[in-house]
Amino acid sequence: MNVTIRGQTRHYRTVTFDASKNTVLLIEQRLLPHEFRIVSMRSFRETAAAIHDMIVRGAPAIAATAAYGLAQGARAFRGGNAAKFLKHVETAYQTLKAARPTAVDPVNAMNRVRQIMRGGKSVEEQQALALAAAEEFAGEDVRHCQDIGRHGAKLIRDRMRILTHCNAGWLACVDIGTATAPMYAAQAAGKNFHVFCDETRPRSQGATLTAWELAQQGVSHQVIADNAAGHLMQRREIDLVIVGSDRTLGHTGEVANKIGTYTKAVLAKRHNIPFYVAIPLSTIDWKLKRGSDIPIEERDENEVLGAWGALETRNSEHGTQNKRVHIRVANPTSGARNPGFDVTPPELITGVITPVGIFKPGDLRRHKKLLGYHTSR
Amino acid sequence: MNVTIRGQTRHYRTVTFDASKNTVLLIEQRLLPHEFRIVSMRSFRETAAAIHDMIVRGAPAIAATAAYGLAQGARAFRGGNAAKFLKHVETAYQTLKAARPTAVDPVNAMNRVRQIMRGGKSVEEQQALALAAAEEFAGEDVRHCQDIGRHGAKLIRDRMRILTHCNAGWLACVDIGTATAPMYAAQAAGKNFHVFCDETRPRSQGATLTAWELAQQGVSHQVIADNAAGHLMQRREIDLVIVGSDRTLGHTGEVANKIGTYTKAVLAKRHNIPFYVAIPLSTIDWKLKRGSDIPIEERDENEVLGAWGALETRNSEHGTQNKRVHIRVANPTSGARNPGFDVTPPELITGVITPVGIFKPGDLRRHKKLLGYHTSR
Repeated sequence: MNVTIRGQTRHYRTVTFDASKNTVLLIEQRLLPHEFRIVSMRSFRETAAAIHDMIVRGAPAIAATAAYGLAQGARAFRGGNAAKFLKHVETAYQTLKAARPTAVDPVNAMNRVRQIMRGGKSVEEQQALALAAAEEFAGEDVRHCQDIGRHGAKLIRDRMRILTHCNAGWLACVDIGTATAPMYAAQAAGKNFHVFCDETRPRSQGATLTAWELAQQGVSHQVIADNAAGHLMQRREIDLVIVGSDRTLGHTGEVANKIGTYTKAVLAKRHNIPFYVAIPLSTIDWKLKRGSDIPIEERDENEVLGAWGALETRNSEHGTQNKRVHIRVANPTSGARNPGFDVTPPELITGVITPVGIFKPGDLRRHKKLLGYHTSR
Repeated sequence: MNVTIRGQTRHYRTVTFDASKNTVLLIEQRLLPHEFRIVSMRSFRETAAAIHDMIVRGAPAIAATAAYGLAQGARAFRGGNAAKFLKHVETAYQTLKAARPTAVDPVNAMNRVRQIMRGGKSVEEQQALALAAAEEFAGEDVRHCQDIGRHGAKLIRDRMRILTHCNAGWLACVDIGTATAPMYAAQAAGKNFHVFCDETRPRSQGATLTAWELAQQGVSHQVIADNAAGHLMQRREIDLVIVGSDRTLGHTGEVANKIGTYTKAVLAKRHNIPFYVAIPLSTIDWKLKRGSDIPIEERDENEVLGAWGALETRNSEHGTQNKRVHIRVANPTSGARNPGFDVTPPELITGVITPVGIFKPGDLRRHKKLLGYHTSR
């Protein structure tokens, strides 16, 4: 999507590859929204570190990053010895895999790159195929998000006020995003609408990443406290809810997503406001049979007890500067509970927006073939 | 309630009066939870400034502070000239009233002090009556909170897990609090229970004030993000909800309270979890006929866009120190909506805990006489 820096607007993907320098280029997401910077990973080890250190986050984005990282590793090999080359690629694969051990998307992405790569006869040919496969993987992610946008944009009517939660935007993908895709497509179609971004405590991805994205694209929006959506719904100031998902059960239609999503779905149901979930096909889990079997990560309590942000500092030498700091908000002698995700049952979900169409959550299983083709990755 | 400083436990009220020095003593609430300090207001003007600057907040607490401030002003007068004395008292009254112009509680409290004071024959006698009336007002607030605790404690069974929102604790009253009163009474009765404190963004009163209070009293508790209660209810980890109220409509049973209260009531209803509101009688509004007529204050957007907290700083001279700072959390080019309150309809409320008993919200009007005696203040 577009980013404007000092009056200059340019298109960026979250992750790209510079073939001439054999580098992976990433938006340094830890600095957002207070600073925009592209960082260059010069080796597969640096790319793995970028995944580990959360310079890049979001399942589709780290999958593409790992795919590029594997191609980068393959292309760094010098010489024509096939056995040594394979060993070198294996090292890159394992290093990138270990960067985010619980995520399945980077592994699937790298498997696909490796499989296509093996079709090459020489080392040189394999190196070329690896990069082509990584580019194809990233391109497919973009097309899928565009397809989500195309289907979802039909839900957005002029002057609607849309609520979203957390960040399922282009920063979590290669481009365009999932929950944001219908908004960007509607904007391109000339529709006017307004977005309320839930702050999304404790990590505030809505206030930081989603608000930054929407501001860069010139989409009318406001941040609200997670407490405020209920009141706005009561006053009929929200017409539509679109959120993303970390895992959607194909068999039941249950949707796991950032903590607080369930609450918004309950409120939307009470007020008869359509509640949609936008997902890439890789998000559908065809194995688990019950939402209660989805493991809910209990995260570090300090996320709840404090906050990250920019502190304005002044000194005679440098003038006014913004420094990124973590502050303690809560009472210093209190602890916290911090479940990272919750599960929304299908009866609260109006529809699931996928690259191949919009489905009732309970109908996903009937369309398994159509929705499952992605598992061939 | 009790506060422990460097191992020393002492009982404090939020506001007290030192007759020998003619000073109003307040807990400096803007420093909590990171520092506990009692500050001394040496004149009615200083007391008015303390109300204005939010050293003390919460309707019952500022009402008692204004009552003491008026007595303080009266007692500062030197001489026996009745006309001059009355003029002096009027100045104190107007100064204290102007400190929080939208609040009705301080005015009611001062009217009562002034009325009782007029029964005195000499200036000296009036000065003595003013202080006695202020002390009586503060004492009545404490007794009412104790009564709320006595009624509400019956709802708390051993091993319950209780959710509360914002701070309707002793810091908002003279002592004990409203929503917290049943908890402190249950604790005194030897019951074991656990409290989840909603952080209560944007001002985080749950994470700061309520968590601090409960920690000081040794009540088992944890802070949660406002997003987390729905998930905990789904997992049957919350058994009871008790919140306070800024205004409860006697005619309809609608409850205005801190933004996010309505959301918790909707969630509690879905999960069949009892939802109670604890209020002093002064909170009941017998004039308004509809909840939609309650004005909802739209507050400064910077509350939503940032956060207050303690920043740990280190330097060679002072070692490690905590400095209270405000940080910008959200995207710097985004704005926010910030409604301060919401209205919960009676069908979501199991009961209203008052000093004179627990009532269904729809039954308040039938008990107007019993509940209304407080309006004689």
